[in-house]
Amino acid sequence: MSDFLTVSRSAHDRLVEAAYRSRGYTADEAGEGAKLAAEAARHGIRTHHALKALHLDHLLGSAVGGCTPGAEIEVVKSRFAGSEIWNANRKLGQSVAYRAIERCIELADKYGIGQVSVDNAFHYLWGGGYVMEAAERGYIAYTNCTSSLAEVVPFGGKYPTLGTNPHSWGFPTTAALGFPIVSDWATSTVAMGRVQALKREGKMLPPGAAVDKDGKPTLDPNEVAALLPFGAHKGYAMCLINELYAGMIGGSLPTLRGRPTIAPKGEKTTTAFYFQVIHPDAISGNAFAEGRDQMENLAEVLKDVFGHGNEDCILPGQFEAEARKRSDEAGGLHFTAAELAEFNELAAELGVAALEPIAALEPIA
Amino acid sequence: MSDFLTVSRSAHDRLVEAAYRSRGYTADEAGEGAKLAAEAARHGIRTHHALKALHLDHLLGSAVGGCTPGAEIEVVKSRFAGSEIWNANRKLGQSVAYRAIERCIELADKYGIGQVSVDNAFHYLWGGGYVMEAAERGYIAYTNCTSSLAEVVPFGGKYPTLGTNPHSWGFPTTAALGFPIVSDWATSTVAMGRVQALKREGKMLPPGAAVDKDGKPTLDPNEVAALLPFGAHKGYAMCLINELYAGMIGGSLPTLRGRPTIAPKGEKTTTAFYFQVIHPDAISGNAFAEGRDQMENLAEVLKDVFGHGNEDCILPGQFEAEARKRSDEAGGLHFTAAELAEFNELAAELGVAALEPIAALEPIA
Repeated sequence: MSDFLTVSRSAHDRLVEAAYRSRGYTADEAGEGAKLAAEAARHGIRTHHALKALHLDHLLGSAVGGCTPGAEIEVVKSRFAGSEIWNANRKLGQSVAYRAIERCIELADKYGIGQVSVDNAFHYLWGGGYVMEAAERGYIAYTNCTSSLAEVVPFGGKYPTLGTNPHSWGFPTTAALGFPIVSDWATSTVAMGRVQALKREGKMLPPGAAVDKDGKPTLDPNEVAALLPFGAHKGYAMCLINELYAGMIGGSLPTLRGRPTIAPKGEKTTTAFYFQVIHPDAISGNAFAEGRDQMENLAEVLKDVFGHGNEDCILPGQFEAEARKRSDEAGGLHFTAAELAEFNELAAELGVAALEPIAALEPIA
Repeated sequence: MSDFLTVSRSAHDRLVEAAYRSRGYTADEAGEGAKLAAEAARHGIRTHHALKALHLDHLLGSAVGGCTPGAEIEVVKSRFAGSEIWNANRKLGQSVAYRAIERCIELADKYGIGQVSVDNAFHYLWGGGYVMEAAERGYIAYTNCTSSLAEVVPFGGKYPTLGTNPHSWGFPTTAALGFPIVSDWATSTVAMGRVQALKREGKMLPPGAAVDKDGKPTLDPNEVAALLPFGAHKGYAMCLINELYAGMIGGSLPTLRGRPTIAPKGEKTTTAFYFQVIHPDAISGNAFAEGRDQMENLAEVLKDVFGHGNEDCILPGQFEAEARKRSDEAGGLHFTAAELAEFNELAAELGVAALEPIAALEPIA
């Protein structure tokens, strides 16, 4: 792995906010976009940091009408006290997602569980970031969304009609483990980005990851026409679940989603989000063994699961927690020299200060 | 596949209820136990019909104190309007689960989403049965539970410290498809029962399904010491999630669960359940493309996913729907001759009328 350079978070945020502002986003939106990007970089989520976020916004977002800077969220009228339904009007996904998780927390504080569904949404990038924040504040949090493009073939099928449709869960295990358990993954075996990387490296795909143009399984990244769900029929069901949520929230045909140029008039091409937060007190029977309290009990359960010779297991969210520790110890965010150069091209374009590395890190094995 | 015999549901229910009553269960419990068993048989769930349910009750339930006939559910005091917390006091799992889903539906009708967590529970057998019932009545329903015994090794580990921990979801797709989508599976690649079956048949396991006594992967059913989660780190996270819920509800150490003989005094060995129901109106943005209503939109989404050459895909819940159709057309429940003989041994023991086959079915391919 190449060496990383550290840049200060405040300098990073200033640059990223300037980039969002230059595209017409409000100060709040720019701040929320920069925050999610910084948190992604801080936790080692290299697929969803600022460069990717801004690139995606350019390709599918503000530059082409997929995302509308300054859009207002409308709360749709509903008779249900523990739920809210939002029309995001294509507002920046990160802004919508941070606010939706916040609203779910308020609902969970009152009802024990709260949900927010979001129609007319634009990509929120890193679902793990939102549930992690809620988990650090002591809640169980969950989100799913439909990915913009249908790239995944249903189990037993031939043609991509499903998104890579991620699920993200966060659990309040900071007291028990030092970090929140965050399970956050796409329901395809690999991401399309991974296929591109393997192609560049001249390497083969793992089995069960992709199909060619005829719908036949392939290991050759050059032959890949579409992806397959992970875990056969079980992962396929996880992928389908997001389409069912989206179909009930307000999303239209998966094969038209994110493809406004081919959609007939009257069709919708936006994605949908679903958020849910649970207050841990609202599920606690408060009768734990050996006089433990809830968090002590959770700690003992985890000690049992990861004892008995299982000490080397990686927990969901552990890599993110380790990356965060490295970032925080270095006092900033880590990027490669190539990434830094890209940030600084952007800085030059925007006429703002370039990012200066504050220290060189030891290479990470 | 061997031929099936059809028996009338009422005769089946009378016999199964008599068996539960003979073990001290109340009329309500016996009725709920018979109902879940009949629904399992009706939907082709051969792993959780009455013979299995009664066998499990004998091994781990009423005969050994794991389950307490006539136990009363206590509702634990809570400040959260949209949630309930129950102490099941080891009441029959099927009774608890049917009532919990019913209570979740009432909460969802009011709050849009409702949850019931259950401490001190005993095995509810077929999670799919409960969410299917809610889905047929128009709701999104979800349940998870911790399996009695830790048989699954965490990803990257060596020793079984996780249950096979199923997740079950039901979706209101009856208007769209003719049946509810029900995704219902254990988080192990295969069940322990499947390992036994392969051993008898002299066949090998699929890769990634099990480990031997040293924690090494094995394909030989004779060498199997423990199971592996499906889908590598993704399925492992799904398996772990149930332990996190259970640890926060009131379950204690997974390696002691279902093993009262080895648990120290003061420990708990019971399982925990989690139930959740969502009212579809509480997530609907009510702005579907082409003037569709919510269920029409869901139908169009599913038509898109399972079109384009994907017409042969099997949907989650489709096998169950097909089995149900066969059962309903034959006017009863299907069992093999060997199963019927076992039922009638039970009938003789209990001194009740034997089950008579009402018609022979054509063999199912």
